[in-house]
Amino acid sequence: MVDLVITHVDVLQGNTIIRDTAIVIDNGYIKDFVPNTDVPQSKEVIDGKGMLATPGMVNTHTHIAMGLLRNYADDLELMDWLQTAIWPAEAKLNDHLAYWGTQLGIAEMFRSGTTCFSDMYFFMDQTAEAVKETGIRAVLSRGMAGVAPTAEQALVESKELFLNYHGYNQGQIKVMLGPHAPYTCPDDYIEKVVNLGQELGAQIHMHLSETKGEVENVIKATGKTPIAHMNDLGLFDLGCLAAHCVHVTDEDMDIMKEKSVRVAHNPQSNLKLASGIAPVPEMLAKGIVVGLGTDGSASNNNADMLEEVRLAAMLHKARLYDPLAIPAQTAWELGTVMGAKALDYDDLGVLEAEYRADIVLYDTSGLHWQPRYNDVASLVYAANASDATTVVVGGKAVMKDKELLTIDEEKLRHEIKVAQAIFQA
Amino acid sequence: MVDLVITHVDVLQGNTIIRDTAIVIDNGYIKDFVPNTDVPQSKEVIDGKGMLATPGMVNTHTHIAMGLLRNYADDLELMDWLQTAIWPAEAKLNDHLAYWGTQLGIAEMFRSGTTCFSDMYFFMDQTAEAVKETGIRAVLSRGMAGVAPTAEQALVESKELFLNYHGYNQGQIKVMLGPHAPYTCPDDYIEKVVNLGQELGAQIHMHLSETKGEVENVIKATGKTPIAHMNDLGLFDLGCLAAHCVHVTDEDMDIMKEKSVRVAHNPQSNLKLASGIAPVPEMLAKGIVVGLGTDGSASNNNADMLEEVRLAAMLHKARLYDPLAIPAQTAWELGTVMGAKALDYDDLGVLEAEYRADIVLYDTSGLHWQPRYNDVASLVYAANASDATTVVVGGKAVMKDKELLTIDEEKLRHEIKVAQAIFQA
Repeated sequence: MVDLVITHVDVLQGNTIIRDTAIVIDNGYIKDFVPNTDVPQSKEVIDGKGMLATPGMVNTHTHIAMGLLRNYADDLELMDWLQTAIWPAEAKLNDHLAYWGTQLGIAEMFRSGTTCFSDMYFFMDQTAEAVKETGIRAVLSRGMAGVAPTAEQALVESKELFLNYHGYNQGQIKVMLGPHAPYTCPDDYIEKVVNLGQELGAQIHMHLSETKGEVENVIKATGKTPIAHMNDLGLFDLGCLAAHCVHVTDEDMDIMKEKSVRVAHNPQSNLKLASGIAPVPEMLAKGIVVGLGTDGSASNNNADMLEEVRLAAMLHKARLYDPLAIPAQTAWELGTVMGAKALDYDDLGVLEAEYRADIVLYDTSGLHWQPRYNDVASLVYAANASDATTVVVGGKAVMKDKELLTIDEEKLRHEIKVAQAIFQA
Repeated sequence: MVDLVITHVDVLQGNTIIRDTAIVIDNGYIKDFVPNTDVPQSKEVIDGKGMLATPGMVNTHTHIAMGLLRNYADDLELMDWLQTAIWPAEAKLNDHLAYWGTQLGIAEMFRSGTTCFSDMYFFMDQTAEAVKETGIRAVLSRGMAGVAPTAEQALVESKELFLNYHGYNQGQIKVMLGPHAPYTCPDDYIEKVVNLGQELGAQIHMHLSETKGEVENVIKATGKTPIAHMNDLGLFDLGCLAAHCVHVTDEDMDIMKEKSVRVAHNPQSNLKLASGIAPVPEMLAKGIVVGLGTDGSASNNNADMLEEVRLAAMLHKARLYDPLAIPAQTAWELGTVMGAKALDYDDLGVLEAEYRADIVLYDTSGLHWQPRYNDVASLVYAANASDATTVVVGGKAVMKDKELLTIDEEKLRHEIKVAQAIFQA
């Protein structure tokens, strides 16, 4: 008796499709693919007829509770946006709002085919609770700013978060340390973070080289790029997920490759905040691991990873005047298996036996999927996030036929309205 | 007794929302907005509760029947793509395929909130028939290539198309002449087009300055940019919709402004074919009219205008390192009223009395629309094309609750399969 079988489904394996097969799932992992005439006894069966099964997308960088600030303030200069809108709003954040903001983000991610996310924000105990309850997979980092009054407290909370949640439920939750960025974390604070990381065996999740201004300021202060400086401070020896890396030099990329720095590329957020376009094909050519992220919904403004996959495929073609810069297959891998590697999962993001059963079924009946010449091209260039119909994480169904099974949507909608009133007060 | 009333609907007017009102529609036009307690007798009533009414989007440049070649060939060098894939496939095109390809594209456009399109392709009689039957609004151009064996025939067919369809049904259909591009239309052919345009009083729809290579070649041959050269040939005196304009100089833009050349900006296609990013904020600063287009679905790969609106808002921010480059409101106007102006409709693209009743109702209940701080930001930055639920063109409902009322979807799906078999043979 296995846990779950998905029958009569088309399965995307690498760049090929296995048509009309059955996926056998047990104990959180894919066990086997068998003919529909040969399925084992199972506690649960999902009919996948007319569906394309793919790995769930991996959102490698977000501040998920910021969904509550979606469309709250847009089209402003960065400092205006932060000082007049986002920071005053965030000052109202509390446990309750962070919890429901996380629920909103997770609901959105399930609805658009994402099964794993990497988060950096505050009130991370609440985010962890929402992750446990909803069943999504997550890598959590308590954001730490050395310049903030909460600098020391953030170190304590990060340690607690790590001890309480790292490795929870077969790796459903992992914890990294989240020093926010070079411009908010002075060198002596980074040293404390490195010491804590060494003590715990914890990896790092940090914003790096997001804007031109940041890079110029760090060079002015240290004579080095942010990447070179963080490397000298020993940060990369812990293992590091670096968000953005828009403005990195060739030498930076050599360091990143040597120290196995993994990148969270956030194309939409980098466009919306006018940061620029990260040199992703150049990073891939050097063998650097790159995943994709949505960033927070205040700078995106949704948690739709399919848009990031499409942008990753599109932007670099035009930037390099090279229509082969990032082909559809590569873009899809950035959004799935490469994202999993960026989060240090080596058994995630591919639909093969012995891999984690994080699976999305896409309804391929939409007219925008027709004709069916090439389903990978369809996913990357033509599909709509709303085509995601059924979602399984760690072998458990969390959404079936668009119904969220682990989230009380009515309660969530009520809490969103309460939050809106608070932020608009 | 009026033709149609949409009740209890939120209406986007400019950058404000009128909540819970009723739209009165008669004889193809918006007549009035009245309280729900005060609606006149009407032949038909649509309940708009929970919906946001917006102008339908205007797709200013496409080759709509190419939907049948969606995902047929991608990620190739342009000439490879054309010579090994697209041209051999197009050689199989016939009346029947063009008709069903058009139906597919129109169905997709309705499903994603587009009510008007401007097309340049072959077998345009068939496209016109599909337009008449489905009720969409369209500006049609028979593509003409002076270097092709069909060059003379194309002039004859263009004239027939104009005489048969221009001005059909209160401007549901308009016809422009469609000389394909400078690199397919030698000067003597452009002269013939200009003569025909003068004879008919017809405007021009042409690909201009799409790629660096095209511009370089025209400069090499004539000493002038494509824009300057076409201006000297008298093409712009007829009134011109210029598709792409990715590689235009400051002097080009001065000519475009002086001659009222309107631009069809196709951000996604320009990315996918590695053409580049058109200088749209610069054009807008000069007072040039710019609309948005999807281009054909072989280079997009869908007919989803909401993606183009979002890209228009996003791309230029990053290119210019200016988060205010194209704000949400401007992007939305590019996709609607500015697109209408680009197609020379002066009573389209705005929900006000005396404007054409081309209206889309968006379901705003999706979690990605919450909280509701700003519905324009929601549309541009967060909404999903699949949120379009009900569509009215010229005062007639063509889609209700996602059901296509003027298209036989089952028959269409059958014909798409037939077409796929032909193109794969």
